[in-house]
Amino acid sequence: MSQPKVVLAFSGGLDTSFCVKYLAEDRGYEVYSVLVDTGGFSDEELKTIEANAYALGVKQHATISKTKEYYNDCIKYLIFGNILKNNTYPLSVSAERIFQAVAVAEYAKEIGASAIAHGSTGAGNDQVRFDMAFRIIVPDAEIITPIRDLKLSREAEIEYLTAKGVARDWTKAAYSINKGLWGTSVGGKETLTSDQYLPESAWPTQITKTEPERVTLEFAGGELKGVAGEAFENSVTAIQKLAEIAQPFGIGRDIHVGDTIIGIKGRVGFEAAAPLIIIKAHHTLEKHVLTEQQLYWKEQLANWYGSLLHKGQFVEPVMRNIETFLGDTQSHVTGKVHIYLAPHRFHVEGIESAFDLMSSKFGSYGEMNNAWTGDDVRGFSKVASNQVMIYGKVSDSVNQ
Amino acid sequence: MSQPKVVLAFSGGLDTSFCVKYLAEDRGYEVYSVLVDTGGFSDEELKTIEANAYALGVKQHATISKTKEYYNDCIKYLIFGNILKNNTYPLSVSAERIFQAVAVAEYAKEIGASAIAHGSTGAGNDQVRFDMAFRIIVPDAEIITPIRDLKLSREAEIEYLTAKGVARDWTKAAYSINKGLWGTSVGGKETLTSDQYLPESAWPTQITKTEPERVTLEFAGGELKGVAGEAFENSVTAIQKLAEIAQPFGIGRDIHVGDTIIGIKGRVGFEAAAPLIIIKAHHTLEKHVLTEQQLYWKEQLANWYGSLLHKGQFVEPVMRNIETFLGDTQSHVTGKVHIYLAPHRFHVEGIESAFDLMSSKFGSYGEMNNAWTGDDVRGFSKVASNQVMIYGKVSDSVNQ
Amino acid sequence: MSQPKVVLAFSGGLDTSFCVKYLAEDRGYEVYSVLVDTGGFSDEELKTIEANAYALGVKQHATISKTKEYYNDCIKYLIFGNILKNNTYPLSVSAERIFQAVAVAEYAKEIGASAIAHGSTGAGNDQVRFDMAFRIIVPDAEIITPIRDLKLSREAEIEYLTAKGVARDWTKAAYSINKGLWGTSVGGKETLTSDQYLPESAWPTQITKTEPERVTLEFAGGELKGVAGEAFENSVTAIQKLAEIAQPFGIGRDIHVGDTIIGIKGRVGFEAAAPLIIIKAHHTLEKHVLTEQQLYWKEQLANWYGSLLHKGQFVEPVMRNIETFLGDTQSHVTGKVHIYLAPHRFHVEGIESAFDLMSSKFGSYGEMNNAWTGDDVRGFSKVASNQVMIYGKVSDSVNQ
Amino acid sequence: MSQPKVVLAFSGGLDTSFCVKYLAEDRGYEVYSVLVDTGGFSDEELKTIEANAYALGVKQHATISKTKEYYNDCIKYLIFGNILKNNTYPLSVSAERIFQAVAVAEYAKEIGASAIAHGSTGAGNDQVRFDMAFRIIVPDAEIITPIRDLKLSREAEIEYLTAKGVARDWTKAAYSINKGLWGTSVGGKETLTSDQYLPESAWPTQITKTEPERVTLEFAGGELKGVAGEAFENSVTAIQKLAEIAQPFGIGRDIHVGDTIIGIKGRVGFEAAAPLIIIKAHHTLEKHVLTEQQLYWKEQLANWYGSLLHKGQFVEPVMRNIETFLGDTQSHVTGKVHIYLAPHRFHVEGIESAFDLMSSKFGSYGEMNNAWTGDDVRGFSKVASNQVMIYGKVSDSVNQ
Repeated sequence: MSQPKVVLAFSGGLDTSFCVKYLAEDRGYEVYSVLVDTGGFSDEELKTIEANAYALGVKQHATISKTKEYYNDCIKYLIFGNILKNNTYPLSVSAERIFQAVAVAEYAKEIGASAIAHGSTGAGNDQVRFDMAFRIIVPDAEIITPIRDLKLSREAEIEYLTAKGVARDWTKAAYSINKGLWGTSVGGKETLTSDQYLPESAWPTQITKTEPERVTLEFAGGELKGVAGEAFENSVTAIQKLAEIAQPFGIGRDIHVGDTIIGIKGRVGFEAAAPLIIIKAHHTLEKHVLTEQQLYWKEQLANWYGSLLHKGQFVEPVMRNIETFLGDTQSHVTGKVHIYLAPHRFHVEGIESAFDLMSSKFGSYGEMNNAWTGDDVRGFSKVASNQVMIYGKVSDSVNQ
Repeated sequence: MSQPKVVLAFSGGLDTSFCVKYLAEDRGYEVYSVLVDTGGFSDEELKTIEANAYALGVKQHATISKTKEYYNDCIKYLIFGNILKNNTYPLSVSAERIFQAVAVAEYAKEIGASAIAHGSTGAGNDQVRFDMAFRIIVPDAEIITPIRDLKLSREAEIEYLTAKGVARDWTKAAYSINKGLWGTSVGGKETLTSDQYLPESAWPTQITKTEPERVTLEFAGGELKGVAGEAFENSVTAIQKLAEIAQPFGIGRDIHVGDTIIGIKGRVGFEAAAPLIIIKAHHTLEKHVLTEQQLYWKEQLANWYGSLLHKGQFVEPVMRNIETFLGDTQSHVTGKVHIYLAPHRFHVEGIESAFDLMSSKFGSYGEMNNAWTGDDVRGFSKVASNQVMIYGKVSDSVNQ
Repeated sequence: MSQPKVVLAFSGGLDTSFCVKYLAEDRGYEVYSVLVDTGGFSDEELKTIEANAYALGVKQHATISKTKEYYNDCIKYLIFGNILKNNTYPLSVSAERIFQAVAVAEYAKEIGASAIAHGSTGAGNDQVRFDMAFRIIVPDAEIITPIRDLKLSREAEIEYLTAKGVARDWTKAAYSINKGLWGTSVGGKETLTSDQYLPESAWPTQITKTEPERVTLEFAGGELKGVAGEAFENSVTAIQKLAEIAQPFGIGRDIHVGDTIIGIKGRVGFEAAAPLIIIKAHHTLEKHVLTEQQLYWKEQLANWYGSLLHKGQFVEPVMRNIETFLGDTQSHVTGKVHIYLAPHRFHVEGIESAFDLMSSKFGSYGEMNNAWTGDDVRGFSKVASNQVMIYGKVSDSVNQ
Repeated sequence: MSQPKVVLAFSGGLDTSFCVKYLAEDRGYEVYSVLVDTGGFSDEELKTIEANAYALGVKQHATISKTKEYYNDCIKYLIFGNILKNNTYPLSVSAERIFQAVAVAEYAKEIGASAIAHGSTGAGNDQVRFDMAFRIIVPDAEIITPIRDLKLSREAEIEYLTAKGVARDWTKAAYSINKGLWGTSVGGKETLTSDQYLPESAWPTQITKTEPERVTLEFAGGELKGVAGEAFENSVTAIQKLAEIAQPFGIGRDIHVGDTIIGIKGRVGFEAAAPLIIIKAHHTLEKHVLTEQQLYWKEQLANWYGSLLHKGQFVEPVMRNIETFLGDTQSHVTGKVHIYLAPHRFHVEGIESAFDLMSSKFGSYGEMNNAWTGDDVRGFSKVASNQVMIYGKVSDSVNQ
């Protein structure tokens, strides 16, 4: 009889290395390790991870490259929606993890695995994202989570691996870093408190640019298609280009305090120069080209989209409906946005767009009105205040 | 027969000076000029304005001091709601103007004026704010708006006043500035374009602090009651204290692009160090002490509150209902917030609160879970993904 | 020199008959009368109206048939969105009027009219719907509204027309009726009060069916495609078929109390058997085939859509975005809905759909669970109550 | 050593009777049975249940009467909010169960029980409501759910009880009925399907009134204080009075299809004449006395309130904030509502209120306008369409 197959979401770190050995040797599975690359790994890193997987004894290791899909199916909508969780966090890790979880689950479905595993601990968001994507896409597969279930300490994991003949340097870095296309998260002893900030040394990208620069972004139909005069067919490359220009300024650093899916509060540092600049630029452009009504409903739906994404509900059908809505609003979001960059900060200087509704042809704010008269506005104000005026008269008549 | 009375919202500038003469001499009114002080004027300035009013020939000039009420009835709720219009603008002018308009209207009601006047032009928001407050509070008074209706140029106004014997230097400043407790707005030739930013020299507060500082804010029941170790009974003084510390860093400068009440897009610069710091600090504290549900609904109602305030609907009864809601959420919003200040920027370093829900007693984010097991979360994920899982199975069964 | 052209939204009633004469003879216009048929007129009626128009002296009369477009561009989305204004009113007149106003404005654009006119009075919603559609689509055309501006009584209009040689019986009916595809409105002396209901005799369709019937509706992709076993290519005909079956029961009568666009409250009776049955049937089907999230956001967007439609904002770009969203949610809304009809009332008996998520394969409500265990739900409840549990412990610790 | 205490939510039915014996004899607990009366039991019934509890061997049985609190802390807000889940269901069982669960948990806290038990099965909503209330209020108590965990059939339970010497007639009724102040639910074989309706005989209240009646309801501050000319200090009695009048007409019957907390769809019949009449009456009165803005936000918050209540989140702090908001909106909701009752149906005939905003003093809908002119409305329409007009011009200029 053949061994049962388990697909493991594999990152190459201590936890998932433990999982390989444990699943293969203690649980008797044929282990299929999978790494989903969403733009956070170099070719070098991918090769090392693959080699480590085979060294640990996986039956097969798959590197699934999903960067383009990640942008097209997810990041693009985070931009269309100007989505910053709690007005702060670009959902760097949330988006990446759920997207990876879905890809892992689809792989498991494809190869007909009877089990599917992840190495998350029991106190974070990722466990739920993996659990949910797995449960929805391969509902009949058993979900195995050794780290969460065995509640092993790092020491115990290292001891186990050493005993199994796996010798590597498992020294933990002072800060745990998660790097991806849409930003890098930073966790450490300060983020476990409520009152401490990350020290300068903790930030993955140290500040190497000190002189202000200007950069112009070009959007077409809501997508970033030009950076600093260079055109990009592929927005992924445009995002990476902007990150290269802006991250050395130390732009887009902050600490996000949020509600985890499991009800506790969590705090995480992040640096995300490109996402924060792109979102502010895109949003400013939208303020010029969309109507007030469009801006209002985009914000409502986008916040919800971000919230469901965060909660691991990427597969929920309403997400597709919201994406359709967001996409439908972008036809006029075309134009240039001028950005000023300086150490630790940036601002949007202005925009240019053929769709700009702030056209002096139709009356300039605070200046002389040509397209309407004082009487028009007086009439407007009168009618617009009718109900509250009546409310006041009725209240007075009752109170007398 | 006695002359009819008109109450005029008077600022002492060219437009409202013209209005006094015009109303008194061309329209035959007894003019009652009113200036509502919401914290933007020095005693010196108030005296000069009063003297100018009488020199222009008003029957009576009233300076109505409303700073405390302005904070209690309006600013307080902007803080409770973390309200930044379009995620950017603290509604500095919007809040002030509508509050002043209401006070002017109430004064007109009190003295039984048959007319009420303001000096707004026909292309801005203020005209609607005045019109609506007047219409609602003194519905039977005629609203007179000479500048809007006559569409006079500055030159024509100056010529008129000179002919009437009023000799003052009416040279227009390069930037029009509106200073108030909740921020200072800046308009100029750049803000009439979409693509230009304000030059350094345009900002009312030039940067005089270059060395970073730290400051701790203390909130009690959502209100700012301590700044840099000093306690304040009155939050107005606390806000002013913080402005004094932070504005010389050039913090809180930006350009707001927004939808005016009359449908055109408008752009306005502003500097508002204290409002932006207070709102970010207050919001961060709330992220620690309120539940996710409370944060969500506060944001919904607060955005609407800001929007109605902007549109001159301060008197709408739903505003009182929203204030009641916002006030009801603040009982736990008590604690310290640590702020880092540097030229052009600031960040929140962390918070301390007895109501902090991010307590390690109940499980730390990303660390070991004690209050629940892996099985609990597995069960949670299973049940929470039930509907989408079933949706997937049903879709598959139809498609087969 | 040629006469200027005015396009007049013409209904053939007293008010618009007056307008023809007045525009032609007192204002010197070449009058182009237009009637937009959205399913409320018989061929006979259309011919009579046309003859009357020419008899009054119009240069040209156009009957624009827009029933199919009315369904495709408007009614369809009212069904997709289950839209009942204030949970009561299917927006019968609102939808029809704005749709007609847009068609009239487009006609005026086509023929290059320099003016455009409607016969609304100054106290209703329709005036704003016409004004806004005209202003947006033909912004340069003058809008002429004789009835509203001259504030003429019926008697004065009749006298004027008689003097001009127009002799018709203008006796006013006791109830003013507006019949259309999406329902019939009824106004009369009772609807001008707050406390009186319409008498039986006021309802346009008297009750002629007394024995209960059952009828099955078939939806495909959200659209009504079958009624009582008969298939319909065209949903307009399906709606008319259902009206024929159900209206003689007196189903769908009510009085709607609403906020007019001009701030006053208004009350209008209506009978709308087909719309109310279709919406309840469609909504019930959706409750079975859509997820909770989809139902929530559909409701949010649909209510807003109804509200903007009511306010004459049909041309606002966000309406197109919302339509796209609503359309995107309908792919699973396919199935049968069984309806029970009786005098004055109906109820939905049940539904059948291949997309029904209430499948006993996945656990039946209130019965034994197979797809999850008690422990799974216990875990779910534990995690789902985590935050409020922590909130309680933190509150207790502060209060001690 | 003393026995550990368990508090059991006891209804006297088969499931909770089994629980008593099982907890006492198999698990070694001292059993404290509790029945929370929220208006659904007669004194007679309460005595029988108590006697049965002691006969089964409980240490102590408590009947906690919470009807008044149930109204004051919960039903009142369902009325203020006009809450019908999915526009259909008055949340009869949802409200009652969560309220009972909270009372049971508070009792357990009071007597210091180490465990707390309920008799729910594993496929319904009630299990989560009990779990969550217990977990939040007595987080340290073990939650024991014998029926859910043992997955016993009715037969097995009866066999167990018989073996233990408990002899009662456990014959199951054809329909399971849950009667309470806010309506009666009905489940049976039809509600387990999607396509079948309940037969006439299944409804707990058979139709005994055939002649139409009229009844007038009087509200004061949003609360029902008068029915048919009789004044009630206590709204509970007023609700019961109305139920007595209206339920014999068979009014307020329907089937609710909803999303359970555990993700499956569920269907339940209900009869709730008083709740449906009160909500429609209250809502109609509100449409006359509140502003459009108040109605909009009340609906938003109320729907959410209903949704969280349904999901067992009654203790969530935002619920208190929403209650405060809802309460704050009710000061003008005072007046009479005239209702017409007939077999199977009712309608609101009209209202009378001193706060009615539909006052002919301020202009009547569709009639002559006195408080504004045609020019005022023309100006209103012009300004209100400005943005979309500009949007159109900009789009045209780009497309040329």
